[in-house]
Amino acid sequence: MCGIFGVSAPRMSSVLEDLYLGLYALQHRGQESAGIAWLDGKGNLELQKGMGLVHACLNQEELAKERTKCAIGHVRYSTAGESNIINAQPLHATYSKGQIAVAHNGNITNARALKRDLESRGAIFQSTTDTEVILHLMAHEQSLSPIDALVKSLSKLRGAFSIIAIIEGRLVAARDPWGFRPLVIGKRDDVYYVASESCALDIVNADFVRDVAPGEIVIIEEGKLESLNMPVKAERHFRCSFEYVYLARPDSVIDDKSVYDVRFKLGQRLACTCPCSEGELVLGMPDSGTIGALGYASKSKLPFEMAVVKNRYVGRTFIQPTQRVRSLGVQIKLNPIKGLIKGKSIVVVDDSIVRGTTSKMAVKFLRDAGAMRVHLRIASPPVKFPCLYGIDTPTSSDLAAAKMDVEALRDYVGADSLCFLDVSDLVCSVGLPEEELCTACFSGLYLKE
Amino acid sequence: MCGIFGVSAPRMSSVLEDLYLGLYALQHRGQESAGIAWLDGKGNLELQKGMGLVHACLNQEELAKERTKCAIGHVRYSTAGESNIINAQPLHATYSKGQIAVAHNGNITNARALKRDLESRGAIFQSTTDTEVILHLMAHEQSLSPIDALVKSLSKLRGAFSIIAIIEGRLVAARDPWGFRPLVIGKRDDVYYVASESCALDIVNADFVRDVAPGEIVIIEEGKLESLNMPVKAERHFRCSFEYVYLARPDSVIDDKSVYDVRFKLGQRLACTCPCSEGELVLGMPDSGTIGALGYASKSKLPFEMAVVKNRYVGRTFIQPTQRVRSLGVQIKLNPIKGLIKGKSIVVVDDSIVRGTTSKMAVKFLRDAGAMRVHLRIASPPVKFPCLYGIDTPTSSDLAAAKMDVEALRDYVGADSLCFLDVSDLVCSVGLPEEELCTACFSGLYLKE
Amino acid sequence: MCGIFGVSAPRMSSVLEDLYLGLYALQHRGQESAGIAWLDGKGNLELQKGMGLVHACLNQEELAKERTKCAIGHVRYSTAGESNIINAQPLHATYSKGQIAVAHNGNITNARALKRDLESRGAIFQSTTDTEVILHLMAHEQSLSPIDALVKSLSKLRGAFSIIAIIEGRLVAARDPWGFRPLVIGKRDDVYYVASESCALDIVNADFVRDVAPGEIVIIEEGKLESLNMPVKAERHFRCSFEYVYLARPDSVIDDKSVYDVRFKLGQRLACTCPCSEGELVLGMPDSGTIGALGYASKSKLPFEMAVVKNRYVGRTFIQPTQRVRSLGVQIKLNPIKGLIKGKSIVVVDDSIVRGTTSKMAVKFLRDAGAMRVHLRIASPPVKFPCLYGIDTPTSSDLAAAKMDVEALRDYVGADSLCFLDVSDLVCSVGLPEEELCTACFSGLYLKE
Amino acid sequence: MCGIFGVSAPRMSSVLEDLYLGLYALQHRGQESAGIAWLDGKGNLELQKGMGLVHACLNQEELAKERTKCAIGHVRYSTAGESNIINAQPLHATYSKGQIAVAHNGNITNARALKRDLESRGAIFQSTTDTEVILHLMAHEQSLSPIDALVKSLSKLRGAFSIIAIIEGRLVAARDPWGFRPLVIGKRDDVYYVASESCALDIVNADFVRDVAPGEIVIIEEGKLESLNMPVKAERHFRCSFEYVYLARPDSVIDDKSVYDVRFKLGQRLACTCPCSEGELVLGMPDSGTIGALGYASKSKLPFEMAVVKNRYVGRTFIQPTQRVRSLGVQIKLNPIKGLIKGKSIVVVDDSIVRGTTSKMAVKFLRDAGAMRVHLRIASPPVKFPCLYGIDTPTSSDLAAAKMDVEALRDYVGADSLCFLDVSDLVCSVGLPEEELCTACFSGLYLKE
Repeated sequence: MCGIFGVSAPRMSSVLEDLYLGLYALQHRGQESAGIAWLDGKGNLELQKGMGLVHACLNQEELAKERTKCAIGHVRYSTAGESNIINAQPLHATYSKGQIAVAHNGNITNARALKRDLESRGAIFQSTTDTEVILHLMAHEQSLSPIDALVKSLSKLRGAFSIIAIIEGRLVAARDPWGFRPLVIGKRDDVYYVASESCALDIVNADFVRDVAPGEIVIIEEGKLESLNMPVKAERHFRCSFEYVYLARPDSVIDDKSVYDVRFKLGQRLACTCPCSEGELVLGMPDSGTIGALGYASKSKLPFEMAVVKNRYVGRTFIQPTQRVRSLGVQIKLNPIKGLIKGKSIVVVDDSIVRGTTSKMAVKFLRDAGAMRVHLRIASPPVKFPCLYGIDTPTSSDLAAAKMDVEALRDYVGADSLCFLDVSDLVCSVGLPEEELCTACFSGLYLKE
Repeated sequence: MCGIFGVSAPRMSSVLEDLYLGLYALQHRGQESAGIAWLDGKGNLELQKGMGLVHACLNQEELAKERTKCAIGHVRYSTAGESNIINAQPLHATYSKGQIAVAHNGNITNARALKRDLESRGAIFQSTTDTEVILHLMAHEQSLSPIDALVKSLSKLRGAFSIIAIIEGRLVAARDPWGFRPLVIGKRDDVYYVASESCALDIVNADFVRDVAPGEIVIIEEGKLESLNMPVKAERHFRCSFEYVYLARPDSVIDDKSVYDVRFKLGQRLACTCPCSEGELVLGMPDSGTIGALGYASKSKLPFEMAVVKNRYVGRTFIQPTQRVRSLGVQIKLNPIKGLIKGKSIVVVDDSIVRGTTSKMAVKFLRDAGAMRVHLRIASPPVKFPCLYGIDTPTSSDLAAAKMDVEALRDYVGADSLCFLDVSDLVCSVGLPEEELCTACFSGLYLKE
Repeated sequence: MCGIFGVSAPRMSSVLEDLYLGLYALQHRGQESAGIAWLDGKGNLELQKGMGLVHACLNQEELAKERTKCAIGHVRYSTAGESNIINAQPLHATYSKGQIAVAHNGNITNARALKRDLESRGAIFQSTTDTEVILHLMAHEQSLSPIDALVKSLSKLRGAFSIIAIIEGRLVAARDPWGFRPLVIGKRDDVYYVASESCALDIVNADFVRDVAPGEIVIIEEGKLESLNMPVKAERHFRCSFEYVYLARPDSVIDDKSVYDVRFKLGQRLACTCPCSEGELVLGMPDSGTIGALGYASKSKLPFEMAVVKNRYVGRTFIQPTQRVRSLGVQIKLNPIKGLIKGKSIVVVDDSIVRGTTSKMAVKFLRDAGAMRVHLRIASPPVKFPCLYGIDTPTSSDLAAAKMDVEALRDYVGADSLCFLDVSDLVCSVGLPEEELCTACFSGLYLKE
Repeated sequence: MCGIFGVSAPRMSSVLEDLYLGLYALQHRGQESAGIAWLDGKGNLELQKGMGLVHACLNQEELAKERTKCAIGHVRYSTAGESNIINAQPLHATYSKGQIAVAHNGNITNARALKRDLESRGAIFQSTTDTEVILHLMAHEQSLSPIDALVKSLSKLRGAFSIIAIIEGRLVAARDPWGFRPLVIGKRDDVYYVASESCALDIVNADFVRDVAPGEIVIIEEGKLESLNMPVKAERHFRCSFEYVYLARPDSVIDDKSVYDVRFKLGQRLACTCPCSEGELVLGMPDSGTIGALGYASKSKLPFEMAVVKNRYVGRTFIQPTQRVRSLGVQIKLNPIKGLIKGKSIVVVDDSIVRGTTSKMAVKFLRDAGAMRVHLRIASPPVKFPCLYGIDTPTSSDLAAAKMDVEALRDYVGADSLCFLDVSDLVCSVGLPEEELCTACFSGLYLKE
């Protein structure tokens, strides 16, 4: 789970601030580090990187003064232990054909094998990112032009990758043949933008042009867009269904499907398949359950209330996890409105259950607020399998639904009832054919290696 | 508009972290500066203050290590020009009777006259806060005990003040006789808390005990609460109605009225008095219009949609107002979901119109997103008069509704229709008698001097 | 021990950067806090203050953009416990006659009595600085003009004070009638400067004009300097001899005596009165003993060597006093050059002995470096009495020379011999008449109260 | 010009703080970036890096809590344009044989050719440091053990390199066969240290053991030190003479020669070869000319005075180079003591002349201070050639002595006389045989490629 954003202008322009804003719009996809790379007036690559939120990593005022024709940026989400500035992207390298910068969203499933092979040919790896594998693969295609080397290198990868790069002064964007992670193209006057999600186009006032197609490589230069196809053809597509369920911002449109719309439909479908006859009130767990709850309420004709308020200022960087804070738990961030809840049978909609701990705390604090009954409705199927394609879900042993059946899970979280959607409901709500969608974390149907 | 929070424990306790969290819960009431004062083990007052958000001003880790019996804190919102560390509260002084610390929310309308009088008696003012007036008044009552001096001093004030103080090692809280600004008492085991809003009690898991009554002075020590009354009797109460409309967090309860509930009712009433026959969809301007929109939708039977998404990471500290950012305007923070809006007649509910610029931008960006018609509904009466009691509304010349009638204002903001509640609707929705409520910013009915 | 610096220009000028540089030049006089106050174009006082070194407290880039006619600044050194932003100077207040800002260097010996009296008349004290007393005294002279009130107020003070102030838009500087702390006037074109030490004039390329005389009040406006005298006449002067011994920078000239020159003479005199027949080498403890050592060497004809090197980067803000750092001790900052020291009889010159701990560590680390014998020579008399006039010397119980005679002290520090100057040597080296000089910390001859 | 420091303990120990202190002692060798790498308890490499001074890059308090058996650190000085976090060292990589971290001081003259060759074999370069070349060379020796691969890789390098590395959990240190840059071994109990200069051993209280010999590779593990020799034999040694002249701290000993001692002798020799009959006073330009001036004075029997004072607080990070600051020039940092200088014929000793601008400013400000005559004496030969071995001297076109003869240079700097040492004087003062010493920047006698 990362966010990428790129820009290509036909002449030296003040577009680095757009990059800054675009990364802000993608901040929900990664808060660990941020970085950008751009071409200066002499064609050299410049770099800014740091640990933390966008505003802490990048200097907006300096960027506002710079001009460039081509720039890319990245926000990174990472698992514990690998958190370090050396993994902050974009990666930047010089090789026999010149300078290159690459940023990447996804997870390459054959990265380990490729690394081992590259290492046996003398490669050294300075980060633990998959991105670096791509750079090495390109560098080992000495006889090919950089773009051809990229095409050939990407063809060797299995798994999920949406990438943007600066190669030979051009903005290059590519999406894996299976279409795991989203990638969209936008345009404002004669400036092209590429982004993980369309919400990043909106913030810079760019028009949405289209999605990058699975297996497509897009090359933008001097206001012109050229499209290539990777030679590898995917047997089917694996567009990530979890983007619609949880990851993406609701104001984004991915592969022609509005995230908001999908979430609303998931909620509606949940109302059909998991009704709650005694429910008096529907509420969503902020923020990700809210739209599903709206859908549930609209279908069930139950009243929808924003009965849990989120403290907008309490981010993970601002409150230290001291003993006292841990003892207070989720109420540091969420506060139920007792007047709405007291003595009522509540239907609580959440987007998904991963570890189950948040749900458990939420049920408890609703009961503490006076709820007579708490009926938990999950607007997606049980997450039973780890994601291999770039989302930081835990291994099976930490996935609540992998360890327990629904009844045991209901008991664990303490709800009066618990109900999930099934995979076909999810597919249906997204509106893409089943063979277009990755549901591996729910179904275990992974891409065959 | 400021937030205050205090704590009193019967023995030396680790409650400064509660103070930190309580101020976080009140961060929406002031982002300019924050500060705390507490008694150390020897009875001396310690102080931490700074400019900016709570986490930037206070050192949570250090506070977690300290122990105290009595502490107060403050978050400050201020008008331009007076922004300076010397105005950060709590104020702290030594005078003939010992040490005292005070924090204050409100605006004292006779402060200038009191200052002039005090200056003629040799007082020097080191800040531009009203709070300092209170300290000087106390110090000039040489013959009285500190508490009696406080009572007498507060009796001389006209206008709005909720204060907390550390006096003779005791936590003291007081609310002006008119009850302008809210103030609540909470308790957790044998620890007492006093806060501007009940949401700050919730975050530290304290139970709500009761509101401080208008004209009441509460003294807490050794786990015991004593109550005094100011000798001044108010002819009537002036509880701020704008707290319910906009200022307070929806999860707070003020003077027994749930803010959420009031906002919902305002929306319902708006649906009755300002229906929109051609409306296809109701949306609220995030975040303050959302609950009103829910009420409007529930009453009008129109579908409610969260059709405008707010970027949670874009705060005023993180994006510099460069030329580019200003040219992009409100879309930096707000993004409409085009799929929901396109081609529709939209009912937009907002909490209030002050300068009118935000509404104008909102109407424009909804039209840009494809709305066929935009009907603006305001869940309060037109703000025609400046607030004299502590809210940073502009002077009349900048209040849109003071300069234009509703039709001119509709034209200015560019909406297809515009409709407000009237004052009686507001009073009715709050549910307090008219003579209990201040509606001065809407009605011009100020406290008689 | 603090540093003050002021500037007055006949027209709005970019002189705040000069203030910044002047405070840098005075940084050795105080590292706890720094602040400046200046008049903006509308005649209002602006303020910047902070804790720490000048560059951390003040924003040079912002100051470079501002223009003013009058500004004052302060660096503060303080004893533990009173370290807080509320004590950072300049202090700034509004009173019946307008705005005023004051910065102060020194210690007022009757401050407590004055405070008590002021408090009994209703004054509140918001800091623990003596400076605030001056403001209150002025404010209680309602019938007088601000300047006359200042004159009358200063006349009530006993003890040490050099002050600079902005009063009625004018730069005002004053020095107590006894002349304890230094204060000098400089000029660059038509801009006047006032500073604690002449080195601060040098950094802004201003010419030294003259010292402010004891008991003089200087008022500068529109490029003109006016001089008043306090009505109090001092029975004699008490110019601080410790400024020459240790406090002031060697490149400063105080009351017409070059600090460098005095230190060199102290060293020469020490060579006469405390010769060391077996000495092979003279070295000074960096940095304060160096010039004395040069003088000693020149007189004794012994070779001078810079045999102890100071790490220029190790300041107290950069190395945390962890257990490991404490165990390493003085060698974190100082490194002896073994090749010079090994097997030799060393004469070590230091400026003074206060607590004795540094001397003890120095003797030890010279022995560890191979010194055969270590002869300690102190270029001042034993410090036996606390300073009441603004220098942070400890109370008698922590003054090594107050607890032990010279032989016991020699034994304590571990030197082979130890020798001090006597007070008459000090007086003689400074070159001012004995009745002009304060030697209280050496002689116990305090100003009579 | 960089500084390196490493530590190896036989068991997990709190030695990271030693690393922190050691880098502090080497801060004069590089202020651009700092970093450290260490082995955690599981044998994984951890990394901390940043831009700026040691205390800004590394977290002393965190490091004080960590334990390790092996750690290395680096401070970096760099030329403009390549200043970026990606060049901060140590570099760290994973390759076919495991993890490795390397830090490097020096300049590899055949780096470009080696890079080109490596690139043609598929290598990508992520930094612009020579250090990365070493990592790639090692990785391309697939058949050899890591240590053997290091030996073979280093054998391919021409030019200057002192390196420290963590390889297979062992601390490895190596010095090029020509001995360009210094490298010393120290020991404290059973903990070994390796450092660029001996002053870094002193700060952690380690005893000096010996220099790493030119061409030697030292491997330290479990308290045991093993020594290998590179197969390449140097035709002669090229120990850097500029380390003695300017770079190293005076309290360091390099290749058995005390830096202090060499500088003193340079000054003495200068007094012989460039006497100044009319000189009344000798002073050194702080800080690098001081010891030379002492030597000059001792030999010439002229009095030595510290007549120029350096402001200890004014570092390059603290004063922004605004227009005003540039107009003030060198006096921001240096202040002459007028009383010593006025009307006198001054002999000024400086360590070297590179661009000539500092000397020009120094002569001017001494004249401004009243010097009648200024005789400049340089305690080294004219710098006429760029350094290819790691010192950031400019290209010939910016070297004053490459463009002008001594008389022209005298005229340029404005001195009354100017005199340099010649190369044989330098060699003689260092005390090493001519064929052991690199004097390329003075003589143009570079290592033959």
